[in-house]
Amino acid sequence: MSAAQQPNPGHVYLVGGGPGAWDLITVRGMKALERAEVILTDHLGPTGELDQLCDTTHKEIIDVAKLPYERQTAQEKINELLVEHAQAGKVVARLKGGDPYVFGRGFEEYEYCLRHSIDCEVIPGVTSAVSVPALAGVPVTQRGLVHSFHVVSGHLPPGHPRSEVDWQALARSGGTIVVIMGVRQAPAIAQALIDAPLAPTTPCAIVQEGSTSQQRVFRCDLGTLAETMERYEVRSPATYVIGEVAGLSANQP
Amino acid sequence: MSAAQQPNPGHVYLVGGGPGAWDLITVRGMKALERAEVILTDHLGPTGELDQLCDTTHKEIIDVAKLPYERQTAQEKINELLVEHAQAGKVVARLKGGDPYVFGRGFEEYEYCLRHSIDCEVIPGVTSAVSVPALAGVPVTQRGLVHSFHVVSGHLPPGHPRSEVDWQALARSGGTIVVIMGVRQAPAIAQALIDAPLAPTTPCAIVQEGSTSQQRVFRCDLGTLAETMERYEVRSPATYVIGEVAGLSANQP
Repeated sequence: MSAAQQPNPGHVYLVGGGPGAWDLITVRGMKALERAEVILTDHLGPTGELDQLCDTTHKEIIDVAKLPYERQTAQEKINELLVEHAQAGKVVARLKGGDPYVFGRGFEEYEYCLRHSIDCEVIPGVTSAVSVPALAGVPVTQRGLVHSFHVVSGHLPPGHPRSEVDWQALARSGGTIVVIMGVRQAPAIAQALIDAPLAPTTPCAIVQEGSTSQQRVFRCDLGTLAETMERYEVRSPATYVIGEVAGLSANQP
Repeated sequence: MSAAQQPNPGHVYLVGGGPGAWDLITVRGMKALERAEVILTDHLGPTGELDQLCDTTHKEIIDVAKLPYERQTAQEKINELLVEHAQAGKVVARLKGGDPYVFGRGFEEYEYCLRHSIDCEVIPGVTSAVSVPALAGVPVTQRGLVHSFHVVSGHLPPGHPRSEVDWQALARSGGTIVVIMGVRQAPAIAQALIDAPLAPTTPCAIVQEGSTSQQRVFRCDLGTLAETMERYEVRSPATYVIGEVAGLSANQP
């Protein structure tokens, strides 16, 4: 077989789709989606206008949130699909919410591709951890006020044996705390921070479905975080910010 | 004067330009630049192809890094320019590196515009804190290994009276530490973390001019961070990542 007859090797793009609004994807990410023949997506990525993208070029869209997983985990199946389609010579895009490497298991997909000798390129995205607060009027840093910010997954409660987070140290670190995936554990997280101790009067902002037309924003303080989320029935996806920046008033009604 | 004769009110976009590569700006950010009549930029934003953008539409580009400041600070002058041009009815874009609200003084610009009744819209960007490591093969989070990451400005040494960072607490928080603007203070920061104590064997990755064609990446550990930066004459802009994720090997030569 001559070089010209070699099957064209496939390629995988791990694309950070940004926080939800379709136009908060990067130019590089959009070009990868345009080039892709197969797009693997789920409900976390910005999927609103994928259909329109497919009108102009034929693409196969695979909603990996709806796959039957049988004896595999969802992630194993996604990894295999990426490699299978690339091995078949396809240009594959894995569209992810936010940034692929911020709690997105993107690096596992990257490693899996490399182990199977598939070229894989990560295309960073606008992380929800920074952009969701920003679009709700909350900067994660502010000169003279805070010199660090801390992005934490709230999917495990403080003290859980598998938790890698020292919430007490976090409370003392002096920066803005941004919790993502922490709706269910909000009462336990707030209590752990208050016990640290972080003042119950520390300002908080809660943002549900940030960057989309369904965005809801609530301001409260650490002492009332859990009850505010319960009262307004805050649901995932939601992000909350704990720190003085949540009390800056420029954008408040 | 009838409504039709009212001067068209100006508008300010605070655009996150991403880490440096021109195509890592968002689609929304690029549209704002296309729409803008005046663009204020500096050496931190991705300016490589601004000239090309101006070939298609007439725009005034103001390099605010080169302004004569006289008795004002640079930031005061930038704030005033934004408002002056918007008050003159112009669509103004302030192009910033990374994300406008991550150590970018973007919220000060936002507040200033609002105080002067100028519409101001923030367009989040891909923050260098996450994307620069990612493009060098380092994810800031990894399932089962780390559930948080901490982005810290390293422009003040640990213990400085104006520093808001508790480096000892940070070392204990259990997450990935990403230091930006910390080239000069690297020896003091590494020592503070080792004293905390964080193991000197903790993996580190140093990335200079991330995402650009000049990118340089060095892997070392916390105990050799400062000497590695000195030996290879690492210069700003550089980011360093401290934590187990810096030792993940998929992308290492």
